[in-house]
Amino acid sequence: MYIPEGFMFSAVASGIRKKDRLDLGLIFCQDKGISWGVFTKNTVKAAPVILGKGHIKNPVTRAILVNSGVANAATGIEGIKRAEELLGALSQILSLRKEEILPASTGVIGEQLPLERILPRLPELINNLSPSHYLAFAHAIMTTDTFPKLSSRKTKEGISILGIAKGAGMIAPNMATMLAFILTDGILSKEDLKRLLQKGVEESFNRITVDGDMSTNDTVYALASRKKHIEDWKEFSHAFTEVLQDLAYMIVKDGEGASKVIKVVVKGTRTKEEAELLARAVAESPLVKTAFYGEDLNWGRIFSALGKTGLPFQPEEVELFLNGLPWIKELTLQNDEEVLKKELFKGEVELSIKLKQGKQSYWLLTCDLTEEYIKINASYRS
Amino acid sequence: MYIPEGFMFSAVASGIRKKDRLDLGLIFCQDKGISWGVFTKNTVKAAPVILGKGHIKNPVTRAILVNSGVANAATGIEGIKRAEELLGALSQILSLRKEEILPASTGVIGEQLPLERILPRLPELINNLSPSHYLAFAHAIMTTDTFPKLSSRKTKEGISILGIAKGAGMIAPNMATMLAFILTDGILSKEDLKRLLQKGVEESFNRITVDGDMSTNDTVYALASRKKHIEDWKEFSHAFTEVLQDLAYMIVKDGEGASKVIKVVVKGTRTKEEAELLARAVAESPLVKTAFYGEDLNWGRIFSALGKTGLPFQPEEVELFLNGLPWIKELTLQNDEEVLKKELFKGEVELSIKLKQGKQSYWLLTCDLTEEYIKINASYRS
Repeated sequence: MYIPEGFMFSAVASGIRKKDRLDLGLIFCQDKGISWGVFTKNTVKAAPVILGKGHIKNPVTRAILVNSGVANAATGIEGIKRAEELLGALSQILSLRKEEILPASTGVIGEQLPLERILPRLPELINNLSPSHYLAFAHAIMTTDTFPKLSSRKTKEGISILGIAKGAGMIAPNMATMLAFILTDGILSKEDLKRLLQKGVEESFNRITVDGDMSTNDTVYALASRKKHIEDWKEFSHAFTEVLQDLAYMIVKDGEGASKVIKVVVKGTRTKEEAELLARAVAESPLVKTAFYGEDLNWGRIFSALGKTGLPFQPEEVELFLNGLPWIKELTLQNDEEVLKKELFKGEVELSIKLKQGKQSYWLLTCDLTEEYIKINASYRS
Repeated sequence: MYIPEGFMFSAVASGIRKKDRLDLGLIFCQDKGISWGVFTKNTVKAAPVILGKGHIKNPVTRAILVNSGVANAATGIEGIKRAEELLGALSQILSLRKEEILPASTGVIGEQLPLERILPRLPELINNLSPSHYLAFAHAIMTTDTFPKLSSRKTKEGISILGIAKGAGMIAPNMATMLAFILTDGILSKEDLKRLLQKGVEESFNRITVDGDMSTNDTVYALASRKKHIEDWKEFSHAFTEVLQDLAYMIVKDGEGASKVIKVVVKGTRTKEEAELLARAVAESPLVKTAFYGEDLNWGRIFSALGKTGLPFQPEEVELFLNGLPWIKELTLQNDEEVLKKELFKGEVELSIKLKQGKQSYWLLTCDLTEEYIKINASYRS
């Protein structure tokens, strides 16, 4: 893992969740950092989202404080008050302004933060800060995740980018889908960071939602410690987006109950928007997702999903490919069923859908839908 | 069951599906009937949908021919040809015009009708015609349905309405979701029937789709034998809609793997469209549906689903009721958890969501999402 200069990490078991389960994490930027954020579009926004949207506008950012277990969403004025009290207490110990800390929460909606348990643990949280504690931080933010999600890159110029995320499901799992924190030691302006983050999110996290769901808490923060001069912006931007894509991939891979990652590619449409509409219809179809799980070459479900968009096309013009192998052309099977079926057994499947209307395309990642998804989501909380 | 005058029914095991499984059904109208139909809006339309859309415009309708096992969708020109050949053969034996028969199919997409097996069975199908064979017909059109779906009403004036449907799932199961056939002996014009059917479908089948999916084959036909004068149109119209609602309810009840029927009611919005948008967001949320399955009072998932519509509202203004019992008001629990939980154990649950923005409302039916749904849809076809 490449750890950008100027950052320290910490995590404690504050007792929000089960005893001895890490549930409070802190990222600390030793000097004055700059930040930006991208947030859920859900009307019901968690208290940390409401606060965070304001705090990223502050010229200086020094820390990110994250808790799991309680989402602090649909908690009203009291929720905001408690989030502010928590940030206030932390900022006092660290001698910062409250606005220099970015908050994030993930967990059950409608429950208040148990400050009486969290506040006494802040000194310990700060004492634990170390550049090497990034893995403890990654664990502290997990909910139904089965593995911590980290990715990093170092450019030839020696600039590091580290991403840490949580999220374990395709369908807005557990009301607090996705948090990601991207750290770098590159010297960039707030405007640079904003542009990079928006572009990066469009190419990564925006391509993994499966039913358009956004939770009340979805947040991606980027924070730069501004230690190292960037010469090659192209390389830096590329590495930055790759870190986001790695994290997005890991979230699909860890999809609740998922057994496969499926890349859906639509090509040959008149506009990118049409390609996206078609790709989402297929990637979000529970019937397509269960067919992939059942390793069933049920291409009719793919055609039906395409058709429900209402976009005009002739079924005859649609070609399907499975991991590059011709599958369907002019409504006819193009390959031996056994050969194609073998591709479905793989943990990663690329489904290509080609139309003949234009030159635009879109891709996104989804996972299959399994009994395990139901089990996880039916029993969560209880 | 009230069987409208002038109709006969029949079914045979034509060998499209497993041996000895009824898979071909016929409704015959002894005199000149009139018909109308409502069809899927999916771009990929099954051959019988394409033909049926034309045939309902014919001034006379004499029969409805339905097969299960093969959807005859995404079958191209050959699919149309075979559907026409089948109708042609039947019309010849019955001495009708082809356009006087309405076709419908349900089953796997992308497979052709095995005419070589079906055609030789047509004489037997016709020989079996009887007013009492409606149950055999209802069985012949089933796919993953666990019970045949029939409902009937008789008005005080003695006019009968009989509905027979198939469909077993909320999420466009198996690509051939829903077929329904509504028969009456009332004397009405094509215009009357069209108006009644459109209104009735809006109040029934349009309120049970859960993720907006429409299969390639969805079809509702209404057919009137025109034997009995209608005086009380209000009563007739009411009874007609009730039959459709009964069938729609049965389809949800038989939802693939479903253990409960959930009625989602949204009240207090500015427009009916907003109420519908909110109701659908909740009813189609896999997380809400798995929470109902898990009998988990996870109201946060309901708020998050409402919020993802992007409609502006304050979470504080939203009230929830469970089977009439106050659940959430101003983001606070209004009742004992154990009392509320008991309501979730019931097979029928009404979730009421009240806003304070206006006087409009909408309701729809959904079912919970269970492991069984995945099992059924992962293994279908194989």
